[in-house]
Amino acid sequence: MNAQPNFAPARPLKPGTVSLVGAGPGAADLLTLRALNRIRTADVILYDRLIEPEVLDMARPESDLVYVGKEVGHHAWPQDRINARILEEALKGRNVARLKSGDPGIFGRAGEELAILDAAGIPCEIIPGVTAACASAAEAGRPLTERGISDTLVLTTGMCRDGDPLPDAAKHARPGTTIAFYMSVRQAGRISEGLQMRGMAGDTQVTIAANASKAEARHLSCPLDQLAEILASAGITGCATLIVTWPKPATVSPPLPAAEIKANEFI
Amino acid sequence: MNAQPNFAPARPLKPGTVSLVGAGPGAADLLTLRALNRIRTADVILYDRLIEPEVLDMARPESDLVYVGKEVGHHAWPQDRINARILEEALKGRNVARLKSGDPGIFGRAGEELAILDAAGIPCEIIPGVTAACASAAEAGRPLTERGISDTLVLTTGMCRDGDPLPDAAKHARPGTTIAFYMSVRQAGRISEGLQMRGMAGDTQVTIAANASKAEARHLSCPLDQLAEILASAGITGCATLIVTWPKPATVSPPLPAAEIKANEFI
Repeated sequence: MNAQPNFAPARPLKPGTVSLVGAGPGAADLLTLRALNRIRTADVILYDRLIEPEVLDMARPESDLVYVGKEVGHHAWPQDRINARILEEALKGRNVARLKSGDPGIFGRAGEELAILDAAGIPCEIIPGVTAACASAAEAGRPLTERGISDTLVLTTGMCRDGDPLPDAAKHARPGTTIAFYMSVRQAGRISEGLQMRGMAGDTQVTIAANASKAEARHLSCPLDQLAEILASAGITGCATLIVTWPKPATVSPPLPAAEIKANEFI
Repeated sequence: MNAQPNFAPARPLKPGTVSLVGAGPGAADLLTLRALNRIRTADVILYDRLIEPEVLDMARPESDLVYVGKEVGHHAWPQDRINARILEEALKGRNVARLKSGDPGIFGRAGEELAILDAAGIPCEIIPGVTAACASAAEAGRPLTERGISDTLVLTTGMCRDGDPLPDAAKHARPGTTIAFYMSVRQAGRISEGLQMRGMAGDTQVTIAANASKAEARHLSCPLDQLAEILASAGITGCATLIVTWPKPATVSPPLPAAEIKANEFI
């Protein structure tokens, strides 16, 4: 924290603006033009661990850059402290760009920052960004949905609030679905087992994209039943997206009549 | 089609490059810098019905702009013809930018274009883009996932291959899940019914984003059990994203032991 002067600063009549900016998957040229504009006009930029230096290089030299990074499972800046800092800067009348990797609305904890700003009456906009699944699939040269093969895309995460159970993504696995797992390398064994138990073939290819779009990007693919071993032997431990498609059967069966859909099947 | 000259053009030694470019949801400033670069360096740009004029304005005046648009349920250019045209331009040695609204990998039929280029040995890259769900939620000021509320995002569509059944998105509905329906305005009644039959409360708010990020954008929200009526009375008939979250219960129950997950529950 910076040392504070001894006098209270004059509170400006108008608070600054806050932009929750999707910075995309990493590569600076995967920023949108609107994100770039907000980075260039911000007085202060709060950024995460996953924001690349080349993105920060886009800022004006006179902007303050504040690192509010979180390591996986290990929070340097708890969310409350980030929320308070955003609010404090906006109340000083400064324009804040809160950079979030990917899209702010997807696993970006935007809701918590929006809520505190809303309660304080500070205007806040969200700038959407390219999410990791899109960048990972693009770089791997594969689509996420495909006519006649997969018509639904599920994005899920291995990271949850402490004490919450992990999302049971296997329940979303069914023919015609692609699942992209974010931040799930540590759960690879559980994912692989859950999907196979659900009926997905062990030899289904999983696309593995580590650090997609960044200089250190790595792309692999392996059969579902070897996922945990391949990740371990390749030394992939951090930020990776795992993408797997359960194709529709070649002959499509008719949908169940509505009356046969079981309510509360999830319980 | 242009009239062809009577002589065969000299076939260049090297084919051109092809970029499947995600043009984002519509607003030109939601293009990525990389997408803008490909638009500016293309010799020929093939574009869809949903690409905004302000995006095409970014092209160099000497580029050829080719409209390959499809109306919903009514194909002006069948996919085969688009594939053939991309291939033809690349084989002439021209650099092709194939603009797709949103992200090319999500409901963008990228797979079919990739397959034909791959078979012909033409290099092709995918430039990821901002998908409609992200733009819609951002403009509506809401996140798509939220800690303790929703940890999984499902993207699905009301448009399918002729003869295929619609995706049964209701099966993905469970507490902790947000579902974004693309191109599903015509299926609103069926969606609303399916989700309620599955157990979602009729008063769950649905975020409706029509033409998100475009000049004519409209945002509404309504209870799930009034979705079809509200869409009809608001005159929303075309391009809209419907977003609905089934929140996790306040007290989280422990996950089922793995042995109790039923294989083939989807059959």
